[in-house]
Amino acid sequence: MARVVVDVMPKQEILDPQGQAVANALPKLGFEGVLEVRQGKRFELEVADSVDDETIAKIAETVLANPVIEDWTVRRVEA
Amino acid sequence: MARVVVDVMPKQEILDPQGQAVANALPKLGFEGVLEVRQGKRFELEVADSVDDETIAKIAETVLANPVIEDWTVRRVEA
Repeated sequence: MARVVVDVMPKQEILDPQGQAVANALPKLGFEGVLEVRQGKRFELEVADSVDDETIAKIAETVLANPVIEDWTVRRVEA
Repeated sequence: MARVVVDVMPKQEILDPQGQAVANALPKLGFEGVLEVRQGKRFELEVADSVDDETIAKIAETVLANPVIEDWTVRRVEA
């Protein structure tokens, strides 16, 4: 069994209203000095050893991320 | 300026309907061998150099994560 992490973030040129909302809220809560916040998604997958990198890449591209508006990275991590 | 990544995941004992929906969808889409999916959030922050680790930890705990149902990690990364 292997553990895979897929990070999905809005592309830099795409507006990120969730992140902007957080960034706008911080000064009102007394936190100064945060210049930008981007919010994305993190997926942790438990996959059978039979699942190869190509399959994981395909899952990330077709199910976890929207390639039109999001960038993503895939990496295997220690279980 | 520094870049900070905050990963927020549902605690292991908390139901994760989003992750379960993905896990249930995968076999129907032809992807076998994924045993579990957990979905969380990833935040990327640009912070001024004056912002110390204690402040970032406080932001993560009070604004980005819900400590009752979520675990989180904070790390500085290369810009």
